[in-house]
Amino acid sequence: MRAVVLDADGTLSLRDRPKPVAGDECVIRVIAAGICGTDLELVRGYAGFSGVPGHEFVGVVDEAGPDDSAWIGRRVAGEITVGCGACAGCRAAGRGHCDVRTVAGIRGRDGAFAEYLSLPSANLHAVPDSIADLAAVFIEPIAAACRVVEQVRIEAGIRAAVVGAGRLGLLVAQVLREHGARLTVVVRSEASRSIASALGFETAFADSARASLARRFDVVVDATGEPAGFAVAGALVRPRGALVVKSTIHGETPVPLSSLVVDEVSLIGSRCGPFARAIELLGDGRIEVKPLVAGVYPLEQYAEAFHLAKRGLKVMLTPGR
Amino acid sequence: MRAVVLDADGTLSLRDRPKPVAGDECVIRVIAAGICGTDLELVRGYAGFSGVPGHEFVGVVDEAGPDDSAWIGRRVAGEITVGCGACAGCRAAGRGHCDVRTVAGIRGRDGAFAEYLSLPSANLHAVPDSIADLAAVFIEPIAAACRVVEQVRIEAGIRAAVVGAGRLGLLVAQVLREHGARLTVVVRSEASRSIASALGFETAFADSARASLARRFDVVVDATGEPAGFAVAGALVRPRGALVVKSTIHGETPVPLSSLVVDEVSLIGSRCGPFARAIELLGDGRIEVKPLVAGVYPLEQYAEAFHLAKRGLKVMLTPGR
Repeated sequence: MRAVVLDADGTLSLRDRPKPVAGDECVIRVIAAGICGTDLELVRGYAGFSGVPGHEFVGVVDEAGPDDSAWIGRRVAGEITVGCGACAGCRAAGRGHCDVRTVAGIRGRDGAFAEYLSLPSANLHAVPDSIADLAAVFIEPIAAACRVVEQVRIEAGIRAAVVGAGRLGLLVAQVLREHGARLTVVVRSEASRSIASALGFETAFADSARASLARRFDVVVDATGEPAGFAVAGALVRPRGALVVKSTIHGETPVPLSSLVVDEVSLIGSRCGPFARAIELLGDGRIEVKPLVAGVYPLEQYAEAFHLAKRGLKVMLTPGR
Repeated sequence: MRAVVLDADGTLSLRDRPKPVAGDECVIRVIAAGICGTDLELVRGYAGFSGVPGHEFVGVVDEAGPDDSAWIGRRVAGEITVGCGACAGCRAAGRGHCDVRTVAGIRGRDGAFAEYLSLPSANLHAVPDSIADLAAVFIEPIAAACRVVEQVRIEAGIRAAVVGAGRLGLLVAQVLREHGARLTVVVRSEASRSIASALGFETAFADSARASLARRFDVVVDATGEPAGFAVAGALVRPRGALVVKSTIHGETPVPLSSLVVDEVSLIGSRCGPFARAIELLGDGRIEVKPLVAGVYPLEQYAEAFHLAKRGLKVMLTPGR
């Protein structure tokens, strides 16, 4: 099969790889897969991953073991982490935090920028007909956005800010709005302001917000993936508020811990979330994803796709369309 | 009156200052006052404070306005923050987070390393006879320790680590133990190990704990006041665990935010706490403070007292004994 492969030196290339074999897992023919900020970080060397990246996808189950034959032919999205269920991490915090986990496209397991990938059936979620292929690629990041409301209590009317109006920030903002928060989306460019605005959000530019909206928000989510964005987010949160770090920031970021102590802020790391809830929101048309799509490319054009993805919106590869 | 005064250049000196006048506030004759890590940071320039430091004290109300005359002659401890009750900070997070607050001995208001200090009666708590003078000095830091259990749910049997076996760490450890946590106190020296051990705690040395106890604890409290201690604390917390920052760390600390995200750790800044609960615990003899006292000095020997306090245990000044 054809696959985009990331080598240890950070280069991507299109290669032939053996198609996965259905043993204990299901083999899924990938229809489309999205490029995420984490993929861009992987190319920069984050997490030392080499192999096939890609962890947001929709596909059709092509082969399965005898216990999973009912999955064959079904259109699915997939949770990306495979845990052992027995280690200290699994016992303390669930399989997603397994000490020896593999994560499709991120850690020890090939991902979805290929014609096929393999995952256990326990990781799969059937995609209802109400969700089109390209929309279904957003199930994984919408689930990640939904994780925020599992971690932080969102009551109707609370003031929330999302810093970063990219593919992830605009999903988080929509999910928080669904839960009743009054949202401000903090942007850096006129282009992203315009998209956030079209989605119905109040917007503010980062440079001015840092002063004019300082300490105003009960909950602030940093979805920029950059230390500068994190600093803006920190300035916006009120005393005793919550600052959620939703994106991957490579390396170490300088944090003024004494401000965190004096203001008693909670800084909350947030990762993967509930697929069922994401499918529900998307299926009910309560999350808009079309304005977030910047481009759709065949697998061969992976280089252009990755290049465009750096601009912040969602770019997809379509191995199986 | 005599007072220890901190100048803007970081020098301490003993001087004559006017005794405070009872206007809207009560004037308290200070019996004893404790030196805290924050005082040592103030001398190093943290928060740009100049004036009389000292924010842990016991004293007797000496003068009061007509509405507060019932307080005269009572032995008291005092909450140190005075808020306006009307600003955005007060409305969002209570008077302790007032945007224009003064804080005795820390911000815009003289503290307790003097013969007298002044505070509103609303800040005062009567000290019961069951608590001796020097023990009563610990009410403020025990309240701060109790704040942790207001912020993080402590259930019987949870595994907690306190990093730093100084005056604050050993109070936090005792409070967490009172709430049912299984405690490990992480130490750096044989001297502090011996004190923690005498208080009945399991101990571990920081260097070895970082590897041997990595990711083991549901709740970890950093009470070291140092970036190196914070890093050890971060290594000990389990996925989805809570890392409480209890001490003042001057400046910016490098934090690997992507680990925080991947492990979904909550980093919680923690400051002042409930005096009533602290008085109850101390009055019932459930917190031991005697082993934490390294020295008691008259006001004149402030320099020796501050020097000894750098070693980590509680040193007191006794203006009014």
